Amino acid sequence: MLEGEVVLFLTEKGKRHLVQVVEGKRFHSEEGYVDLSSVVGLPYGSSVRTNIGCTWFVLFPKFVEDLMKVPRVTQIVYPKDLGAIVVMADIHTGSRVVEAGTGSGVLTASIASYVRPTGEVYSYDVSERNIAAATAQLARLGLLRYVKLKHGDVTSRIDELDVDAVILDIPTPWLAVSKAHQSLSAGGTLLSLSPTIEQVVETVETMKETGFIDIESIEILLRRLRVRRGMTRPEHIMRAHTTYITSGRKALKSAPG
Amino acid sequence: MLEGEVVLFLTEKGKRHLVQVVEGKRFHSEEGYVDLSSVVGLPYGSSVRTNIGCTWFVLFPKFVEDLMKVPRVTQIVYPKDLGAIVVMADIHTGSRVVEAGTGSGVLTASIASYVRPTGEVYSYDVSERNIAAATAQLARLGLLRYVKLKHGDVTSRIDELDVDAVILDIPTPWLAVSKAHQSLSAGGTLLSLSPTIEQVVETVETMKETGFIDIESIEILLRRLRVRRGMTRPEHIMRAHTTYITSGRKALKSAPG
Amino acid sequence: MLEGEVVLFLTEKGKRHLVQVVEGKRFHSEEGYVDLSSVVGLPYGSSVRTNIGCTWFVLFPKFVEDLMKVPRVTQIVYPKDLGAIVVMADIHTGSRVVEAGTGSGVLTASIASYVRPTGEVYSYDVSERNIAAATAQLARLGLLRYVKLKHGDVTSRIDELDVDAVILDIPTPWLAVSKAHQSLSAGGTLLSLSPTIEQVVETVETMKETGFIDIESIEILLRRLRVRRGMTRPEHIMRAHTTYITSGRKALKSAPG
Amino acid sequence: MLEGEVVLFLTEKGKRHLVQVVEGKRFHSEEGYVDLSSVVGLPYGSSVRTNIGCTWFVLFPKFVEDLMKVPRVTQIVYPKDLGAIVVMADIHTGSRVVEAGTGSGVLTASIASYVRPTGEVYSYDVSERNIAAATAQLARLGLLRYVKLKHGDVTSRIDELDVDAVILDIPTPWLAVSKAHQSLSAGGTLLSLSPTIEQVVETVETMKETGFIDIESIEILLRRLRVRRGMTRPEHIMRAHTTYITSGRKALKSAPG
Repeated sequence: MLEGEVVLFLTEKGKRHLVQVVEGKRFHSEEGYVDLSSVVGLPYGSSVRTNIGCTWFVLFPKFVEDLMKVPRVTQIVYPKDLGAIVVMADIHTGSRVVEAGTGSGVLTASIASYVRPTGEVYSYDVSERNIAAATAQLARLGLLRYVKLKHGDVTSRIDELDVDAVILDIPTPWLAVSKAHQSLSAGGTLLSLSPTIEQVVETVETMKETGFIDIESIEILLRRLRVRRGMTRPEHIMRAHTTYITSGRKALKSAPG
Repeated sequence: MLEGEVVLFLTEKGKRHLVQVVEGKRFHSEEGYVDLSSVVGLPYGSSVRTNIGCTWFVLFPKFVEDLMKVPRVTQIVYPKDLGAIVVMADIHTGSRVVEAGTGSGVLTASIASYVRPTGEVYSYDVSERNIAAATAQLARLGLLRYVKLKHGDVTSRIDELDVDAVILDIPTPWLAVSKAHQSLSAGGTLLSLSPTIEQVVETVETMKETGFIDIESIEILLRRLRVRRGMTRPEHIMRAHTTYITSGRKALKSAPG
Repeated sequence: MLEGEVVLFLTEKGKRHLVQVVEGKRFHSEEGYVDLSSVVGLPYGSSVRTNIGCTWFVLFPKFVEDLMKVPRVTQIVYPKDLGAIVVMADIHTGSRVVEAGTGSGVLTASIASYVRPTGEVYSYDVSERNIAAATAQLARLGLLRYVKLKHGDVTSRIDELDVDAVILDIPTPWLAVSKAHQSLSAGGTLLSLSPTIEQVVETVETMKETGFIDIESIEILLRRLRVRRGMTRPEHIMRAHTTYITSGRKALKSAPG
Repeated sequence: MLEGEVVLFLTEKGKRHLVQVVEGKRFHSEEGYVDLSSVVGLPYGSSVRTNIGCTWFVLFPKFVEDLMKVPRVTQIVYPKDLGAIVVMADIHTGSRVVEAGTGSGVLTASIASYVRPTGEVYSYDVSERNIAAATAQLARLGLLRYVKLKHGDVTSRIDELDVDAVILDIPTPWLAVSKAHQSLSAGGTLLSLSPTIEQVVETVETMKETGFIDIESIEILLRRLRVRRGMTRPEHIMRAHTTYITSGRKALKSAPG
């Protein structure tokens, strides 16, 4: 671990803390404190003891954990949905992707991480404050070079043409469906995230009218198993809803010859 | 569409067919046939008519669809799980990943698509026939250059050191946990796929004993919504189980100083 | 088993057949046939052999299985939902319950079985044919004495007052909410079954306006575990949707003093 | 509402309180207090105001709510499972049911409510304290006359013969499978509740060996929909696990003649 790095502490009682390593500082918790100086120079996977004798492990955060360490200015995208979004939107290294709204930049960063090093994300937001905050996050994650942050409203205008995918995480995605169709390459994917069913219905019906095909709406449920030999069972509580994910592909409007 | 290309037909009744375009051939279905010559040269997103007047759209397959067009020599990994695997195993461009068994190469190809262009997959299988079949698939998908296919048994030996992730899709993953620990870099992720609960328990208990931390076992459920204005409801039938996904991270074995 | 009785055959391969025992008849299946005469006089739980040597067990059908042996004139209520309906609608021996539409009589019979011997079900349907068919079913199940079948439309008129519960399984339940409120005793439960989300929204919003409180909408998912030592896992396929169940309780409309 | 009765307050913010009405007492909450004297004599469905002006509704509790108002001496059975248990165990008015362990008496009372007025529950527990507590609860609910509470261990002895169902909610149900088989009538149902998968496996395997057929293990998931026009979505959090429910039917052990 290096001075200035963000590390993940796994505590004895199973808590997880993302902490920036600063020499001379202490990180305090219910299980006592750790002198952060003592962490500098340790290899990942090492354990440390808190002042009251609890054993913690220190790891680098996975990308998706690092991603979540943002000020929650807006609703967040959940890790369980990130993988599905990338697969459904057919995003790969080299993809050119329009995204809106930027929000906290969590989804932007996730997409950027999959299009690099040769692809690019064009991320729109109507709020300059969101763009500023997302810029900082993307810089922190080393992903800023793969993203063009743009102040604008995708329901009015999308500058890019022939993009591989358009990802919408806005309150009224149906208003952006037409612009998305213009922006996409033939066969490209429009993917939209909405928490409510009425938003999904409005978006899907608009997509049908606008020339999208292969439209589907899904939700991803993640269920945890608590594994202990002789006492294995599903976890008692789970997240029952985050967002619906709707996708469809651009068809050409002209009738067959 | 070009001669020789694999295209996706979306039929009027909602069927999906992956078909290789060969001049002079016809593709027959319940909805009539399409002359494949007539498809050559059309832009993606075009529609064609079958001989009995059904309208079909023609698209390039998404990567995940193309991926699934393999002879089913072994159990397949489902698209809903592929995204979760990549996120949980923290796989990115540049990652070095050990994988076993190669099987049909579906998971191999999926991982390869996310580590490219600078990463590498080392994929082991005990069957030379599987390796041969997977080689063909990876070549077809343009991913062979990112994969080293290796004839061997990961429960006995893993050659690579300091890898970012080890992905196991074998019947007895617990027997490979120790070799995986040796192969991984500190903090690296072991991820294992198993359909049965007893396999999960055996694997998790072995991981605990072997020095893995942050162990979790999950399953991903995908539920489809049938969206039609005024008649929206979840689909009647869903896939209720494919695989459990278990992951954990390598800790150093030495006790804290 | 007695001549004329309906029995349940559990076949060697796990199929289930509800069959009426008629002397001299054979019951044919993929696993061969059984002479029904040979079943007469056997105790429940006995096994019989088919002509090709398969072993079948013979049981009396559980009530809920017997219930499902009806001609499917209309959409059926699923066993997984029947228990939840009875619990949510607070139905017990002695309850007086209005129900509509009668349909095939499956739900009617189920409710009747729980209100007997002192309660009563008033079951409305707009189709005389449904009423005739349900009458036959209820008679077969020995439940006709607990049910008053009524030809009528509950969106226009419910004759009974001060009932404990009103159960709606009709396409436009919101149109019957007002009549249900009049019919219910104070604190009584209105429960409505609808497959689509738009029906649920319309019904709930109407219930809010009409003076219902404690409104909730749920769905019940049943997941099967395939249990075999060493190979235990959830079943691969499940029913992902049957109906939403909405319930609410009648409040008095007058403002507090 | 009468003095001494237990009522259900539904508060303005959606909380639910089960409160015994005692003249001269106040019920205090975050939303202020209610003078319980003011509730006496009100009809169900009435609203009252707290001292700080919040409007609450007053209802009689549904049976299942009343049932849950017990001191939690042991793990509780959830309402979502009660209906399924009754349907799967084929319990009706008149059924004779053995149950163990009595625990808090919640499941006992629920079963009793469905077998009355002509059936009977024989409820065993190894703890005299549990039996005493359950006796009090059953008396409070008016169900004591339908239950014989018995101090004993069903893994050693079940006195009753020819019962319709045996319901087990004990830590080692597999040890009671043999006694349950003896106690059941031919075709009768053994139903067992267990939170962990290993318990389910052990129980199912023992049932197979002991002459049970038609064995199935399920779990019931209840998902709530938050319904508001234009903003409808599933609830964010749900209970992901309570218990597995295993059932099977008694076959005769003798081979077919």
